[in-house]
Amino acid sequence: MSSQPEQRLARAALTHLAEPGDPALGALLALCEPAEVLAAIKADMLPGTGPGCGDTPASRAALERALGRWRLRLPELPDDAGIAAARRDGIRLICPGDPEWPDGLDDLGRARPYALWLRGRSDLRRSSLRSVSMVGSRAATAYGAHVAGEIAADLGERGWTIVSGGAYGIDAAAHRGALVAHAITIAVLACGVDYPYPAGHADLFAEIAADGLVVSEWPPGRRPARLRFLVRNRVIASLTSGTVIVEAGERSGALNTARHAADLGRMLMAVPGPVTSAQSAGCHRLIRDWGVTLVTSAADIIEMLSPIGTADPPAASPAKTRSPDLPPSRDDLDEDSARVLDAFPARGHTGPATVAVDAGVDLDTVLRCLGLLTANGFIERSENGWRLRRSGPPGR
Amino acid sequence: MSSQPEQRLARAALTHLAEPGDPALGALLALCEPAEVLAAIKADMLPGTGPGCGDTPASRAALERALGRWRLRLPELPDDAGIAAARRDGIRLICPGDPEWPDGLDDLGRARPYALWLRGRSDLRRSSLRSVSMVGSRAATAYGAHVAGEIAADLGERGWTIVSGGAYGIDAAAHRGALVAHAITIAVLACGVDYPYPAGHADLFAEIAADGLVVSEWPPGRRPARLRFLVRNRVIASLTSGTVIVEAGERSGALNTARHAADLGRMLMAVPGPVTSAQSAGCHRLIRDWGVTLVTSAADIIEMLSPIGTADPPAASPAKTRSPDLPPSRDDLDEDSARVLDAFPARGHTGPATVAVDAGVDLDTVLRCLGLLTANGFIERSENGWRLRRSGPPGR
Repeated sequence: MSSQPEQRLARAALTHLAEPGDPALGALLALCEPAEVLAAIKADMLPGTGPGCGDTPASRAALERALGRWRLRLPELPDDAGIAAARRDGIRLICPGDPEWPDGLDDLGRARPYALWLRGRSDLRRSSLRSVSMVGSRAATAYGAHVAGEIAADLGERGWTIVSGGAYGIDAAAHRGALVAHAITIAVLACGVDYPYPAGHADLFAEIAADGLVVSEWPPGRRPARLRFLVRNRVIASLTSGTVIVEAGERSGALNTARHAADLGRMLMAVPGPVTSAQSAGCHRLIRDWGVTLVTSAADIIEMLSPIGTADPPAASPAKTRSPDLPPSRDDLDEDSARVLDAFPARGHTGPATVAVDAGVDLDTVLRCLGLLTANGFIERSENGWRLRRSGPPGR
Repeated sequence: MSSQPEQRLARAALTHLAEPGDPALGALLALCEPAEVLAAIKADMLPGTGPGCGDTPASRAALERALGRWRLRLPELPDDAGIAAARRDGIRLICPGDPEWPDGLDDLGRARPYALWLRGRSDLRRSSLRSVSMVGSRAATAYGAHVAGEIAADLGERGWTIVSGGAYGIDAAAHRGALVAHAITIAVLACGVDYPYPAGHADLFAEIAADGLVVSEWPPGRRPARLRFLVRNRVIASLTSGTVIVEAGERSGALNTARHAADLGRMLMAVPGPVTSAQSAGCHRLIRDWGVTLVTSAADIIEMLSPIGTADPPAASPAKTRSPDLPPSRDDLDEDSARVLDAFPARGHTGPATVAVDAGVDLDTVLRCLGLLTANGFIERSENGWRLRRSGPPGR
């Protein structure tokens, strides 16, 4: 059994040797200690041979190939002092199990980061508890950049952290909006946290690090590469409870982040724009074909991400003692929503106007409540209107 | 038992006496002949007393109040000659059961129009078979007017009829787009079909009536009134298989049409726009809270309205069941029709304007010939306009 500092050093070394999301390393780390894996790479010999390390012929062959891959980078691996030296100038390493390690990352399973390099003063776990990722096109329009900045600033004002990449366009606009609101913003890069890419964003990253965080799975000094952006996107999606796509062309990389968010069961939202704008085509497709929620404002986003009845808190208190894992019950509903829900027939369909009459509330209230009730799984849209979900909210 | 002309005249008179959608008149007409109802109003005595005319104490009281209401307008009711005189200058009356009466109107149940006044040359039933209603804000933005016009023109090119109101803004833009594409467009007014409201649209209505239709439940000469627009909206929704909201503020009257469409089980669609525009806020709310389908183009709309698998037909439709006796041949065609038919491409679709240019005849001639050629099985309407029927007239 190795010591805790040794395991951390081993994880740091592994970020040098393997690309993030490598399934072979994910499989090994699920079974063996990081230091054991590192020693195996150095010794060119797979750790153990018992059932503990996935010792089937097929997986063994894959692991041996991976071992060869990782060993290619051994000559460039800094020694322990070198790795430790990277952890200065405000750069630090966090590992699974650390108090600062966000739970959301563990949803990635074996694709979980081996460790994360951080630059900045915020606590990653606490900052990401109430966070939204906001991503979109690099070639943003003035409209998209404006909207991303406004919504990010508004979210920041309301105590939400912004998470995005480091690209030009929507990413930068989102960060700048959050900075204007003096909110915490987190840039997740596809290169070392000290590597200024794009070069024009060196100052922006410094500003972000001053109050927020610059985060990477790659070790300091590492260059970005094309595929790394796609791998990185799963971290953006998993760190937050929801992802908002602000502008995206039909083939935008933002749609890759959207896919990760959907796969992870995160709330996925998109901001519409002019149908005449190619940069909004991806957002419209998400809404139309994926059923992604259309949002137009920070209030919309917060409503989608908050447990029912808590969307419009009177004060800034983020203290809601309800576990986010618990699905909402009828008891959690505000009075209007409860009345609207009660007006639904046990069987068959109904429409908003009918519900308004039966519930004795006005139509605007019904429409507001329908969104909440749908988002929380009480009701669903049908071909002929709306109806109760047979099973109620998932998990109830 | 009264004669058929007498029943039609009675329905015409009822459009003078009662506001459309009056539940009391709807109830009476479900039970009694129109002439019987008219006679009862004139005699100030409810028709019958048996179970035939809804003779319950509660409904009787409501009917008596309604009778008093309708009698208030008796002094202004034109005599039979006066009513008949309205039916000239291209104005005509259609009644339930007429060949030109669209089935969709019957979905309104007791709120079905008593009759409809039409101005224009198209056949209402046939024109509305492939139709979309497109409505939106009077205070449209340049963006909204542009998009409404483009989509309407594109729908028109593909053989779809546009149905809208007569207001400034989106309504007018939709009609103008259809007119540019030389497509049939239908304006459903909340005043007499000869009443120019708004005054600035007198020329537009004349243009619409030239090839399409101006339609109203109110008799010629009747002024618009605030509530009439809302009552009128159910006719716009019921005439078509789908309604598209192009721009709508949070309290736009277009949302009332949307509600009618939803209640009637019609496909409801909305065009998104900039989230910074108040005129798109209603559309975004429809998409977000009502689950209304987001559409960005004519192709999107046609896809939503076409039975599955027919949106982009790969080949000619299966042979129609047409009586095989004496099918017409090309030799039977008049010269204009023959030229129009020759202007059709061997494969693919075309539109009336293209045909007019290629055939060297004017558009009115094309439109006249299209009907003849369709009726005789030479051509057919397709998703994208008009095309040759593969098989030609059946039997050849």
